Amino acid sequence: MRDDATGGPRPAPHRFFVAAEAIRGDRAVVGGDQARQIATVLRLAAGDHVVLVVEGHENEVRLDRVTPGRAEGEIVDRRECPTESRMRLTLALPLLKGDRSEEVLEAVTQLGVSRIVPFTSERSVARDLSVEKRIRWERIAREAAETARRGRMPEIAAVRRWPDLFGALQSPVVVAWEGERERRLRDVVDPDGPSLSLVVGPEGGLTPDEVWLAREHRARVVSLGPRNLRSETAAIAAVAEVMALVDDR
Amino acid sequence: MRDDATGGPRPAPHRFFVAAEAIRGDRAVVGGDQARQIATVLRLAAGDHVVLVVEGHENEVRLDRVTPGRAEGEIVDRRECPTESRMRLTLALPLLKGDRSEEVLEAVTQLGVSRIVPFTSERSVARDLSVEKRIRWERIAREAAETARRGRMPEIAAVRRWPDLFGALQSPVVVAWEGERERRLRDVVDPDGPSLSLVVGPEGGLTPDEVWLAREHRARVVSLGPRNLRSETAAIAAVAEVMALVDDR
Repeated sequence: MRDDATGGPRPAPHRFFVAAEAIRGDRAVVGGDQARQIATVLRLAAGDHVVLVVEGHENEVRLDRVTPGRAEGEIVDRRECPTESRMRLTLALPLLKGDRSEEVLEAVTQLGVSRIVPFTSERSVARDLSVEKRIRWERIAREAAETARRGRMPEIAAVRRWPDLFGALQSPVVVAWEGERERRLRDVVDPDGPSLSLVVGPEGGLTPDEVWLAREHRARVVSLGPRNLRSETAAIAAVAEVMALVDDR
Repeated sequence: MRDDATGGPRPAPHRFFVAAEAIRGDRAVVGGDQARQIATVLRLAAGDHVVLVVEGHENEVRLDRVTPGRAEGEIVDRRECPTESRMRLTLALPLLKGDRSEEVLEAVTQLGVSRIVPFTSERSVARDLSVEKRIRWERIAREAAETARRGRMPEIAAVRRWPDLFGALQSPVVVAWEGERERRLRDVVDPDGPSLSLVVGPEGGLTPDEVWLAREHRARVVSLGPRNLRSETAAIAAVAEVMALVDDR
């Protein structure tokens, strides 16, 4: 329903994740920060298009009234967002020192994870996710999902300690551990499966006892290859590898 | 040749990349920063082991004399480093704003790339690699290769502009571009091949003219999946995907 009559390629409209309440029949209304961004930052006006994303669906809106407090318009197209993965992928992400977890969060959100479960384990250095950090994580996840043109933001779960982690993960669960030499991700991932949970260890690695506990919870343990990876590289590489297997089906 | 008679696992010895001159028959000698690190930072003494890595080979050394200016010992084991990939992978990496290229450099070095060719193109924001930055890049690459227990540091080539880039890349060349929808990395990568060059675009993307030029140079163009990735995520994900294909053979 885009107006491409001018012939030239037109830039893709800006995308916003909005609450379901923004959609009202054939019309859409946003307020607050998003209205301000539309009016003041992007300087959009009546006739311009934006895309409002709600729960995996894109609503393309032709704006007809724009003020810094409220932007509204007519929904001219509705479609399922084509960028969400068929597989619901959860990443159990160790709390890392400084901003390291945030770099991972940004990258794996772009790569398509559905859920992040932060955790601490015996050798973790960082022990907690403060309220301020959680707010920053939510913002990073939102912006990364927008950049990637996704249909959903990943959910960021409560922080778990290792013994409680497995109760929070959808099966099958795969743990990447440098002590495993043979079995690889592609040996255990079913690219047609509906879900997968991927666990990567913290800076100091997982202890043998922790890996034993994971196996007790029926987790499969895999190697990410012969080279020793930092936690953040391991997390991004593992998610990229799984998504390539799933997308290539 | 390790002494494992105590039964418990002993931590892997520290590893250093050294010049070929450090190896003298059955003995090894290091000076400078490395001697200081061995003596003062790690506080190693006669009887302790270090691993000196030269051009893909590991020399395990039992130290017998250690001073802050010079550390030497007997070579008790020589072996080919088992962590180097069979495939020589080159990454053509756009110069990105701020420290973004450095994050990529660290991750892809851990993942096993052999050579980095920095480049600028029409939409590049950063235009040059200063002498200071290049020195920092060299250090990051060395440390990341040590962390990963690799046998070689990646080479960091001179900065190229897009039109000169293809002359600097070993074939086959694969360009990741968001304008390609169908063809994927695994469709074009031969995991048994001796070499591959991977090109990822800058923040603003590659222009259609640039992609046309790449095709003129016989590059294959691929998609990294349906989600829109930032340059740095794209580079890490693409290298991870290729290395998984190569390692899994």
